[in-house]
Amino acid sequence: MKGNSQKLSLSIVGGGNVAFHLMNIFYNNDKIEVKQLCNRSCFTSHFEQFAVEKITNVSLLKPVDICIIAVKDSAISEVSEKLPFSGNLVVHTSGNTDIDVLSGKNRKGVFYPLQSFSKDIPVDFQEVPICIEAQDLADLEVLRILAESATSKVYEINSFQRKILHISAVMMNNFTNHLIGISKEICEENKVPFEILKPLLSETFEKIQKTEPFEAQTGPARRNDRQTIENHLALLSGNRKEIYKTITNSILETYGSKKL
Amino acid sequence: MKGNSQKLSLSIVGGGNVAFHLMNIFYNNDKIEVKQLCNRSCFTSHFEQFAVEKITNVSLLKPVDICIIAVKDSAISEVSEKLPFSGNLVVHTSGNTDIDVLSGKNRKGVFYPLQSFSKDIPVDFQEVPICIEAQDLADLEVLRILAESATSKVYEINSFQRKILHISAVMMNNFTNHLIGISKEICEENKVPFEILKPLLSETFEKIQKTEPFEAQTGPARRNDRQTIENHLALLSGNRKEIYKTITNSILETYGSKKL
Repeated sequence: MKGNSQKLSLSIVGGGNVAFHLMNIFYNNDKIEVKQLCNRSCFTSHFEQFAVEKITNVSLLKPVDICIIAVKDSAISEVSEKLPFSGNLVVHTSGNTDIDVLSGKNRKGVFYPLQSFSKDIPVDFQEVPICIEAQDLADLEVLRILAESATSKVYEINSFQRKILHISAVMMNNFTNHLIGISKEICEENKVPFEILKPLLSETFEKIQKTEPFEAQTGPARRNDRQTIENHLALLSGNRKEIYKTITNSILETYGSKKL
Repeated sequence: MKGNSQKLSLSIVGGGNVAFHLMNIFYNNDKIEVKQLCNRSCFTSHFEQFAVEKITNVSLLKPVDICIIAVKDSAISEVSEKLPFSGNLVVHTSGNTDIDVLSGKNRKGVFYPLQSFSKDIPVDFQEVPICIEAQDLADLEVLRILAESATSKVYEINSFQRKILHISAVMMNNFTNHLIGISKEICEENKVPFEILKPLLSETFEKIQKTEPFEAQTGPARRNDRQTIENHLALLSGNRKEIYKTITNSILETYGSKKL
C-alpha cells in the first residue's frame, strides 16, 4: 500500500456473484481503484457497466495492493499458484476455505462477505458483515481499510471460525429456505392456500429476532406430543418424512425427551 | 343462535394459551358474551382479568350458542363426551384433530386459529388466520360470524386440509426455529459472535416473502458442492450431523443431483 493519501489498488479474479457485488461497491469508491478484472471465460453482460480492463488470462494480471480471488472454492489454489507476481497481498472470498489454500508465493489473506448473493437482487452492503483474516498485522489493517470502505460491520475471524460461521449460515439460510419450500409444496399438492401460513411465517421471524430460539421453541416435539408426531409421519413419505423425523428427534433430545 | 340482534353466547373449556388468547379477543367484543370458563385445575393469574364465571367441572357447563373446547388434543374426545347438554354446537381448536373426534351427542365444528401462541406475547388477532369447519351450513355460518369478529382472515378448511396446514406450520415455524437455535449454539460453542449472522437472517426472511423458495435456493447442496458438504459434515456430529445430511440429501434430490 502506498500511504493513506493514495488510492488502494485492486484486481478481482472471477465472474460470478461475489465478483459482481464487489465490483459494484468498489467501482465508484473514491479510495479504491480497480485496475483489472479477470475471468477465464467472457464476462456476462452484468459487467458491461464497469469501465475496467477485462482480461481472460491470469498471467496478464499486474501487481496491485490487493488481488481478490473470487472464484469457486475448488479453483482458489490453482488460480493463486498461476498469479504472475509474488510478495503481494492475495486474498480469497470463501467462507469454507482455509487461508493456507492460497499459494505461498504471495502474502495470504481472506475477505469474506457473509451474505447470500444473487446477481439480480441489489445488496445494501452497509449491512453486510465482512470477515477478514491475514497472516500479519499490516495486511490485516489494509484489509480492514478495504472492508470499512464497504460496510460498518467488519470482523476479524480466523479460518476455523469462518468455517463454523459458514455451517451456521447454511443451516440458518439454505436449510430454512428449503423447509419453507417444502411447506409450500405440501400445501399446493393438497390445494390448501399457502397464504394462510404467511402470517405465521412473519411471526416466526419476528419472534426469532426478539427471543432466544431455544427458549421460544414450540410445537409437538417440544411438548413431546407423540400422537401428533405419529399422525404427521403417517402423512409424509420420502425426504420429507426423513426430515420430519430427524429434526423432531433433535428437538425431543434437546428438551430431555426420548427419541422416536 | 338467537338472531343477529342478540349476542352470540360462548363457553370456553381450557386454561392454556389458546383459551387465554380466545378470551382476550372475545371478552371485550360487543357481539359476543362469554358465559363460562371451565378448566379442570385452577386458572393461572393471567385469567384474573376476565370477570366471567369460572368453573372446574365440565358437568356445570350450561348450553350456549358455541362451546369451544381448547384443551390438549388427547383430551378433546373425553371432554366433549362429558358435556352435560346435547344438540348444541361444540367445536375444538386443534390443527391436528379430526372433527369426528368430537362426541356425536352435540353438533360438531372446528375453530382453529393458525398461530404459535405464547401467553406473554400479545397477538394482533386481526392478522391471525382462523380455519373453520362444521357439519352443516348453518353452523358454518355461525362459526364464520364468530371468526370474523376476531380477524379478517377466515378460511373454510376440512379436517384433512387442516392436518396438512398443521404439518406445514410445524416445518415452517417449529423446525426453522430449531435450526436457527442450532446455528446460534454452534457459534457460541466456538466463540463466534452470533450477531455476524443477524443480517443474513433478516435477508433470508425478506427473500422468502418476495420469491419462490425453491427458486431462491442457494448453498452447497443446491450447487452440488460435495467438497464443502464433506467439510461441513466432518465438523458436525450427533443430531446436528443427521440434520445436515438429511436436509442436504433432500436439496440434492430436489435439484436433480445424486444423494450423498
